Amino acid sequence: MATVTIPPSVPSPAEDSELLRKAFAGWGTNEDLIIQILAHRNSAQRKLIRQTYADIFKEDILKELDKELSNDFERIVLLWTPDPAERDALLANEATKRLSASNWVLMEIACTRSSHDLFMVRQAYHARYKRSIEEDVSYHTTGDYRKLLVPLVSSFRYEGEEVNMTLAKSEAKILHEKISEKAYDHEELIRILTTRSKAQLNATLNYYNNEFGNAINKDLKTDPKDEYLTLLRATIKCLTRPEKYYEKVLRLAINKVGTDEGALTRVVATRAEVDMQRIKEEYHRRNSVPLDHAISGDTSGDYKKMLLALIGHGDA
Amino acid sequence: MATVTIPPSVPSPAEDSELLRKAFAGWGTNEDLIIQILAHRNSAQRKLIRQTYADIFKEDILKELDKELSNDFERIVLLWTPDPAERDALLANEATKRLSASNWVLMEIACTRSSHDLFMVRQAYHARYKRSIEEDVSYHTTGDYRKLLVPLVSSFRYEGEEVNMTLAKSEAKILHEKISEKAYDHEELIRILTTRSKAQLNATLNYYNNEFGNAINKDLKTDPKDEYLTLLRATIKCLTRPEKYYEKVLRLAINKVGTDEGALTRVVATRAEVDMQRIKEEYHRRNSVPLDHAISGDTSGDYKKMLLALIGHGDA
Repeated sequence: MATVTIPPSVPSPAEDSELLRKAFAGWGTNEDLIIQILAHRNSAQRKLIRQTYADIFKEDILKELDKELSNDFERIVLLWTPDPAERDALLANEATKRLSASNWVLMEIACTRSSHDLFMVRQAYHARYKRSIEEDVSYHTTGDYRKLLVPLVSSFRYEGEEVNMTLAKSEAKILHEKISEKAYDHEELIRILTTRSKAQLNATLNYYNNEFGNAINKDLKTDPKDEYLTLLRATIKCLTRPEKYYEKVLRLAINKVGTDEGALTRVVATRAEVDMQRIKEEYHRRNSVPLDHAISGDTSGDYKKMLLALIGHGDA
Repeated sequence: MATVTIPPSVPSPAEDSELLRKAFAGWGTNEDLIIQILAHRNSAQRKLIRQTYADIFKEDILKELDKELSNDFERIVLLWTPDPAERDALLANEATKRLSASNWVLMEIACTRSSHDLFMVRQAYHARYKRSIEEDVSYHTTGDYRKLLVPLVSSFRYEGEEVNMTLAKSEAKILHEKISEKAYDHEELIRILTTRSKAQLNATLNYYNNEFGNAINKDLKTDPKDEYLTLLRATIKCLTRPEKYYEKVLRLAINKVGTDEGALTRVVATRAEVDMQRIKEEYHRRNSVPLDHAISGDTSGDYKKMLLALIGHGDA
């Protein structure tokens, strides 16, 4: 369900490195060449290019890109190029800093990556920041956000499809009870959402819907302006229907006056190799316009070219 | 600092498997042979024996041992033989069950294993129990125990030696403030103990001791009968001086009327390949009697032989 397109015959990492070196050289930078190479290599191939480039030219290609590029195009290339775990560690670290704090980004990483991939992010975080992700998240959050986010980023959920229906029923009742009491940060509610496998949680929420007449997210919409409740609903959506969650993030980013490039860039860079195909389908269905049209109308220049290449828009 | 002794020339896994098969055969079981082999192989060697045994005889050697042995000797052989991660997963799972519930065992596993080893336990737990360890721990605990244990078992602490002294000072103050208020399960206290690296925590607790005149564990001894406080002190000891923690567990197990074989077995089986040498030194210093003498006086038969072999007592 990835949208990245890889050419049938891929040049060697050394050839790619030489071409990229040429793209950086001289007066202007050859952005088209950068897109042509980096946007059409998968993460394993990009990793090899980065290693090879460092071997040949004794430079980290990320630093070269940082020097040569600017603005939104720079941001998406710098997010796209590294290993997914390293990229997520970077996003998570930014999300714990005062000026760029984002509980959403943390929740997104914790809930939409596989258990194994989330663990790889935690390893990459150690290597780069000399701290643990849960250490920074808990230090930078308070109250109900902390109660929810720390177990989310620390989780290592079971990934099997086994479902215990008795448990689903009893935990659906707990969720309904806590929500009726408006105890939205109750430890039992947090426990269920942060520790159960996605399959088990899905069974619980289906039972909730059948038994109590509403989808849980409808019952959690008592105060549409409450930011914690909004995050809680998004958490549930990420855990059960990630493509719908991402469709909405894209919709809001594109519809916003001025476009939210931060969100647009993040979603495209993190999902192009994962489930962007499904996100595009959701987007088209929900907005009656294909995602590539919407992006074309809202962005420009190299940034636009890069986005379109990553979401698999023809030979853009 | 391990105490397990491996012979200079180790037989092949196939030879070991054949001999073990013979030890199980016929009327009686040859316990001495079982000890001679299994107590003198490291975890990688035991793993190979288990695989080879299964290849040759189509049986899991753990099941064979389970059939042939009994009582305390059976327990230590069954705990010792598997992979450390599998053993810890088993101990953790037992510790979440009603009849064998033990917050201590969970804390011990979470605090004395390396971050990487704890993650291996979480993987082994998935594989064997089809659930996550944090899922079972949070489901089976409540109140302050849950608040402490869930982040402990979910932690992936940074393991570098870097220390931030400014942070150590500010967090020592937080700890002192919360302890003065008797807020022993305050989220800030839990955050510091469950997320900081062991090196950082050590710096914080040293500062605490220097600045406030008491070691933190002394300040946490306001009510010696409070079980949560006892667990909290043990947590701090495990994180900072594991050999002292284990010395005390052994001391209490051996001094108890009737001996606590459960604790004795667990400590020997889990530490013989890790830091039993240091634990023995601590034990001797604190009790004026060597650990092997104490064990010899308190246990008997094959169980005693196995314990002594694992703690490196001559050619026992």
